[in-house]
Amino acid sequence: MTGRLYVIGTGPGSPDQMTPEATKAVEQATEFFGYFPYLDRLALRPDQVKVASDNREELDRARAALTRAAAGVDVCVVSGGDPGVFAMAAAVCEAVDSGPPEWRKIDIVVVPGVTAMLAVAARIGAPLGHDFCAISLSDNLKPWPVIENRLRAVSEAGFVIALYNPISKARPWQLGKAFEILRQTLPGDTPVVFGRAAGRQDERMLVVPLASAEADKADMATCVIIGSAETRIISRQGLSDLVYTPRFLSGEIR
Amino acid sequence: MTGRLYVIGTGPGSPDQMTPEATKAVEQATEFFGYFPYLDRLALRPDQVKVASDNREELDRARAALTRAAAGVDVCVVSGGDPGVFAMAAAVCEAVDSGPPEWRKIDIVVVPGVTAMLAVAARIGAPLGHDFCAISLSDNLKPWPVIENRLRAVSEAGFVIALYNPISKARPWQLGKAFEILRQTLPGDTPVVFGRAAGRQDERMLVVPLASAEADKADMATCVIIGSAETRIISRQGLSDLVYTPRFLSGEIR
Repeated sequence: MTGRLYVIGTGPGSPDQMTPEATKAVEQATEFFGYFPYLDRLALRPDQVKVASDNREELDRARAALTRAAAGVDVCVVSGGDPGVFAMAAAVCEAVDSGPPEWRKIDIVVVPGVTAMLAVAARIGAPLGHDFCAISLSDNLKPWPVIENRLRAVSEAGFVIALYNPISKARPWQLGKAFEILRQTLPGDTPVVFGRAAGRQDERMLVVPLASAEADKADMATCVIIGSAETRIISRQGLSDLVYTPRFLSGEIR
Repeated sequence: MTGRLYVIGTGPGSPDQMTPEATKAVEQATEFFGYFPYLDRLALRPDQVKVASDNREELDRARAALTRAAAGVDVCVVSGGDPGVFAMAAAVCEAVDSGPPEWRKIDIVVVPGVTAMLAVAARIGAPLGHDFCAISLSDNLKPWPVIENRLRAVSEAGFVIALYNPISKARPWQLGKAFEILRQTLPGDTPVVFGRAAGRQDERMLVVPLASAEADKADMATCVIIGSAETRIISRQGLSDLVYTPRFLSGEIR
């Protein structure tokens, strides 16, 4: 008898943004696999075991969890945010696809969560109020020219853009290059939101025009949202600005 | 003294997928504005008042809620899913932007939620595991040629596509036309997921190849996810297929 394998998202970090469904999945499982800061968000019982790993080892982590589930253990693979957005649900599927036949008999339950761009958007207004896209800026898993091509395609077509994995020590120049490309197609006053650690103690929200957006305003905990030509800013005395993209689009075809 | 205005998302429908943060916002407010099926999801106290409206009256609803908040009442504007994705957060911002100066003094708190595409993706595997976009197929708020142009741009650039508002009685042909356009750029065996009412009693998930995708498989409660050329299906004996998009992209530039 195989165990069940849950793949959960903790949400952006505040316990208040983790769904009851995810909390219940945590109660059911006995072994937990994940990047250690995400595992640290969980309040586990003494009989529950953490198997922490580094953040570049997703496929090995997925295989370790599947191996334990195949052996009959109820396991839980833990992502931050939503497990289906640049996270562990795809890694688990990749491992099943290339793994032994018995892994296809494991009951896999993916539990959705609040992904970073939604949490950042909520803190600042409604920048994702119209058509938008999510792009991982990491060129570890895809060639950089593909990323450039996608940035051009969606900015020309009028999408708001959420950038995940914008920058890291090993990838220092990609975000600056992305801004450079976007400045070729979008107005200089297009709002750029640097949303760091939304909903957590160390949250920091910054809004700047694309013309002066600089990569060093982001770190690994930042989701960067770049508006479309329609995105607007509402100034408010004594309250933070609201950034939003209207639901409607009129005028010329973009 | 103005009241506070919460804009919350209930998640896809199951109470288990609504965050504690949203539940707490509901406890704080005394008047609730929303499309009536969303309001019906809330268990309110006798002193809490529902102001239900139809689903095409977002801007009027936002203005009504702002008017009450300006008068000192703590109000809650209720969306399904996430309030920032084709929902009420943008409508509230639009109303503030064009409204009287006193509305800019209202403390607006947007509470994020699990949006439909994340819930559908979780039920089926990880179709949003790589770069993706969300497009509203409603041409009530933007010209249809813009939608066609966006569908072409993102399918050519290799994005997975989540379609919101795919069909309604007043918009019967748009989804079929969208499939037609996508068949010009994507392989016929690209997986299409019709995800209806994810997480609810009447949930229904259907996966078909793009070549035979038909619009009548969708209704207003459906989110349609169209894979990229990379999206894969894992067959499993006795368990439902897994649909996923790998995190990596190798080979030719798309």
